[in-house]
Amino acid sequence: MLTLYYAPGTCALASHLALEYAGAPYETVRLNFKEQQQRSAEYLKINPKGRVPALVTERGVLTETPALLQYIAQSFPQAKLAPREDAFLLAKMNEFNSYLCSTVHVNHAHGGRAARWTDDAAAMETMKQKVPQTMGEAFALIESQMLQGPWVLGERFSTSDLYLYTLTRWLQGDSVDVNRFPKVADHFQRMNAQPQVQKVLAAQQG
Amino acid sequence: MLTLYYAPGTCALASHLALEYAGAPYETVRLNFKEQQQRSAEYLKINPKGRVPALVTERGVLTETPALLQYIAQSFPQAKLAPREDAFLLAKMNEFNSYLCSTVHVNHAHGGRAARWTDDAAAMETMKQKVPQTMGEAFALIESQMLQGPWVLGERFSTSDLYLYTLTRWLQGDSVDVNRFPKVADHFQRMNAQPQVQKVLAAQQG
Repeated sequence: MLTLYYAPGTCALASHLALEYAGAPYETVRLNFKEQQQRSAEYLKINPKGRVPALVTERGVLTETPALLQYIAQSFPQAKLAPREDAFLLAKMNEFNSYLCSTVHVNHAHGGRAARWTDDAAAMETMKQKVPQTMGEAFALIESQMLQGPWVLGERFSTSDLYLYTLTRWLQGDSVDVNRFPKVADHFQRMNAQPQVQKVLAAQQG
Repeated sequence: MLTLYYAPGTCALASHLALEYAGAPYETVRLNFKEQQQRSAEYLKINPKGRVPALVTERGVLTETPALLQYIAQSFPQAKLAPREDAFLLAKMNEFNSYLCSTVHVNHAHGGRAARWTDDAAAMETMKQKVPQTMGEAFALIESQMLQGPWVLGERFSTSDLYLYTLTRWLQGDSVDVNRFPKVADHFQRMNAQPQVQKVLAAQQG
């Protein structure tokens, strides 16, 4: 049994979706970020970073979305969530996931989490103001260069689709109109319609 | 033949080291960041992100350090740069590499690249001032929680050691004394002594 620690609205949705698509045996534990449960002594024993997602396995705890996505795909190969047989295509999946993690997520975090990188309230405000621009530029690059269509890797569905869907959900809150990016908007609608996505969203919001 | 685009002092060193350790057939192309060659029309055709590293393969271009490191390890298995036979340990390698990419590198970038996230010069200054703190906190976590010793994954040498070495080189410029972290400092010294590291550094500085 795998146990996923998550909070609604976070990037942990991608790993939650991966577990569902994989048909993995799993349970979830919801953290209340408003009550700072991710900073509790109890949770810091599980993940000293004080972040989600964290996946408790028989061997120990795993963190970081790109690592979790590949691990889940590798552990449940019949679900074909990663092109494991093709080193180049697998690298394209990891390249995409790494871009979302280290650039797109980071851009977004300068809205609500600017205190990670400055102690100055006025500076935080300037960082927040730039988020629509940086998120818009990142999604313009995804639209023009990365999203092959119909899925991120082309005909092959993969963890990158789960992760892209997760971060696309943030655009509205970041004041970026997804319809500026027709391929991304189409991808988002198709993902929204999938029963696994609806099931996981209902579970997170229930 | 693989072609790596890099610039001295950047995270591309990790991939350069991986190619050398792997015994891969490769050549390198050095970009001059002072002349903004990474923003040239010619280079943007190779990597539209305008960043390094970029690895040109027979199948196409790959970017993002964590993806490159795993790809190189997978393509040259005899070098044993990744624990490919153990899904959990491979996930620990990817978790570590993802942390370096999305947290440690990002902290560092708030020194010289704060303009990515704000347009305000005063805000940039406050972000730069916090870099020693954020880099210090990240390396404290690496020291206490992540670096198993003697290598990142314990007895098993991996790409995580090449990547950790690369970012440890940034500490001095970020006004963080590596000797605050005895395990990291010892790792750094042992890496520095390796002939492959000396060969690659000489090539980048030559």
